[in-house]
Amino acid sequence: MASKPSVPKGTRDFSPSEVSKRQYIIQTIKANFEKFGFQPIETPSFENSDTLMGKYGEEGDRLIFKILNSGNFFYDKKEKIELPESIEALQVNSAETIDVKQRIELNKFTGKISEKALRYDLTVPFARYVVQHQNDIVFPFKRYQIQPVWRADNPQNGRYREFYQCDADVVGSKSLWQEVELVQLYDTVFSSLGLEGVTIKINNRKILSGIAEVIGASDKLIDFTVALDKLDKIGEDGVKKEMIEKGISEEALVKVQPLFSFSGTFADKIAQLSELLVSSEEGMKGVEELKFICDNVADLGLSTAILDLDVTLARGLNYYTGAIFEVAAPKTVSIGSIGGGGRYDDLTGIFGLKNMSGVGISFGLDRIYLVLEKLQLFPETVAATSKALFVNYGDKEALYASQAIQKLRQENIKVELYPDNVKVGKQFQYADKRLIPFAVIAGDQEIASNTYALKNLVTGEQISVDLEGLKNALLA
Amino acid sequence: MASKPSVPKGTRDFSPSEVSKRQYIIQTIKANFEKFGFQPIETPSFENSDTLMGKYGEEGDRLIFKILNSGNFFYDKKEKIELPESIEALQVNSAETIDVKQRIELNKFTGKISEKALRYDLTVPFARYVVQHQNDIVFPFKRYQIQPVWRADNPQNGRYREFYQCDADVVGSKSLWQEVELVQLYDTVFSSLGLEGVTIKINNRKILSGIAEVIGASDKLIDFTVALDKLDKIGEDGVKKEMIEKGISEEALVKVQPLFSFSGTFADKIAQLSELLVSSEEGMKGVEELKFICDNVADLGLSTAILDLDVTLARGLNYYTGAIFEVAAPKTVSIGSIGGGGRYDDLTGIFGLKNMSGVGISFGLDRIYLVLEKLQLFPETVAATSKALFVNYGDKEALYASQAIQKLRQENIKVELYPDNVKVGKQFQYADKRLIPFAVIAGDQEIASNTYALKNLVTGEQISVDLEGLKNALLA
Repeated sequence: MASKPSVPKGTRDFSPSEVSKRQYIIQTIKANFEKFGFQPIETPSFENSDTLMGKYGEEGDRLIFKILNSGNFFYDKKEKIELPESIEALQVNSAETIDVKQRIELNKFTGKISEKALRYDLTVPFARYVVQHQNDIVFPFKRYQIQPVWRADNPQNGRYREFYQCDADVVGSKSLWQEVELVQLYDTVFSSLGLEGVTIKINNRKILSGIAEVIGASDKLIDFTVALDKLDKIGEDGVKKEMIEKGISEEALVKVQPLFSFSGTFADKIAQLSELLVSSEEGMKGVEELKFICDNVADLGLSTAILDLDVTLARGLNYYTGAIFEVAAPKTVSIGSIGGGGRYDDLTGIFGLKNMSGVGISFGLDRIYLVLEKLQLFPETVAATSKALFVNYGDKEALYASQAIQKLRQENIKVELYPDNVKVGKQFQYADKRLIPFAVIAGDQEIASNTYALKNLVTGEQISVDLEGLKNALLA
Repeated sequence: MASKPSVPKGTRDFSPSEVSKRQYIIQTIKANFEKFGFQPIETPSFENSDTLMGKYGEEGDRLIFKILNSGNFFYDKKEKIELPESIEALQVNSAETIDVKQRIELNKFTGKISEKALRYDLTVPFARYVVQHQNDIVFPFKRYQIQPVWRADNPQNGRYREFYQCDADVVGSKSLWQEVELVQLYDTVFSSLGLEGVTIKINNRKILSGIAEVIGASDKLIDFTVALDKLDKIGEDGVKKEMIEKGISEEALVKVQPLFSFSGTFADKIAQLSELLVSSEEGMKGVEELKFICDNVADLGLSTAILDLDVTLARGLNYYTGAIFEVAAPKTVSIGSIGGGGRYDDLTGIFGLKNMSGVGISFGLDRIYLVLEKLQLFPETVAATSKALFVNYGDKEALYASQAIQKLRQENIKVELYPDNVKVGKQFQYADKRLIPFAVIAGDQEIASNTYALKNLVTGEQISVDLEGLKNALLA
């Protein structure tokens, strides 16, 4: 292999310091998931294609990584595979010229040579898990799952083809206390990470449906929400222009006028919404749910996060049926959402198990990493480095050093021996680059007196200690 | 979807208790890796195909899972893909009738529609990582990596298509102190897991080469070793018969007679080998290396493991150039090896970086799991379950409960609220099935007196406590 090796586009190697920082975030999330009663599950990296295909829309289907059948994939199921009439039917002159007929042929052919696909998110595999193991599961089932997912997205703007999702979901209960706890969970995790003052935005699908109903545009719910979501960017006039273009009437816009200047305390907002939605049963149900969640969260109090009612919030609209959550980092960091979630009333219906309401939240590992890095919130102790390097002066000295090393490791102190008897300068250089704070020197003199010279590589200070002294100095 | 969903063959879902037990093993391994100065890296789940193909032999190539190019895979690189002359050339009448020409055509075609493949082990990606990041790495580089790998093996006998590897390797040093430390690391990890008395078998590739050289059968090294390895199963006569069939001379067998009754103390074995290998420079080098490692391990002492010189040990013969390790569980459990490793003198040569000696060991997670399960060595506290369930009597009571829950979680106590106000019996049943040891009951009376009734679900005992008393009882 002549050229320097590389990783596939959209994927990453993680160096020791990166792994340690990622693990610090993951361990913090995990510990809090468990404190809130969530239990871990893991599902396979690949699923049968029919478990995943058709669950994420046409765009999703295209972005799912398919795995080629192994062996002779034209003959994998003990039967001859029928090939398309002509392979030329699949071959097009540019990536853009593919037409519907060719797409169908291509999908059919793909289905023949590939029966497995890489996990695209954690939610569909979770739904599959719940249905498959429904007789062994104790409901309500509070599960968390922290595993990588893969998407054939165009890698840009911090989007990757392999990335971790960290999800906590409860399935089998419609209780709004879950939503209350999930808000607390967000607060607890981000506060534990030292990321204070995140904004947890909350909305409710029923409120959005109610608004659309009130203005007689139930069929234009998505257009309406997409436009409203741009209020910050294009202003009131811009949003109204877009809504009219999408066929929403001038009269309707008058009705929703309060949404364009939606502000005040939480109680103010609830009052405005109640007035606006008074004629919509569904809308009022949404207001009631929102009020229950926010009142109880307020009674219990949050450590550092702020709960904010954001009526423009609509992520995953096709999916959520109740509460919708999104977390924004403090304003000093300009980055997209660092978490999101919501209530979905029919999680497992796609696999034949009806009436299983679920609610869950997700943490965006990569973005949280960027925020902690930018705000310098990673603890200094996060890197997994040794506390001391024992200098190697030869085999006799290395044995003497190894005796101490063995004892120190029994005390859970991370120490290592430089493996080779090379120039001391090179060994110190290694300690320096590895950010190891101490060196232990033990030559003839130390062996004779059963001591060790402990050198602080930051201050240069050096002391002579016995094994007990060495242990105490390194534990300090 | 009519039929019950399932996972692809050879893959597994892991339930909460299984994840917790696996994590317990992984965390123990990780903590000890770090104590020994190893640092974590992670590599992508899939690599460019040319990184993996040709590195594991023909069998390996066949078992690598290939990922289909996304989008229109006949037109992925902005150029029209040349198809095989006739697709019928690829289509065969049974899985068995494929011939060499068809295999070549098929491989060519596969290469066109697939450019990425799932990680097959952690060693080749590690070699790729070292070469790619050589300018950022501080050598000697002690890295560990704990990630899943995928193989299109026939799933049987506890073999899976997705499984974890847990590897620790040092690259960039030829020092035998690494081998000494790796033996200690095995001992420390297994002792930490409570799995006492494992046998760490050690051999040296140079000894095997030396034996083959001495008997004038250097070209039959593999045949010789494969036969010798069967000594336990087919006995001395069987082994000799097989060796003769493979073309090893009667005269040679007389020379290696000591190997058939190889026993005694470590010193005895070394003496016998030295005598046998006196005429082979390479063989004597192997004996010397073995002696260095074993002498120093003996001087330092092992906690509970036994180091055993096993001259029949030959795993990965094509690969290892020095020490070879394999770990066997205590005899009470009949299972294959639970770990293995060795020295390979040219790890990164395949990617163009010469003279990088490496040595490493691996832990077999699935088998270690089976052994710990069989010997009942998992600590009882390993499962991530809540310490107490707060019974839900309605919203007012749930809020009162939630106030206590919030305080207890701040003390790192795992507690949860039953989300729904359903019959108390059902709530207790939930606690029972989840193995939650305590229930907390708080109704009107408790709210009035600002107390909580704490019920021990094992003994049935119930006490009335204030929040402080609750905290202390649950921390105990």
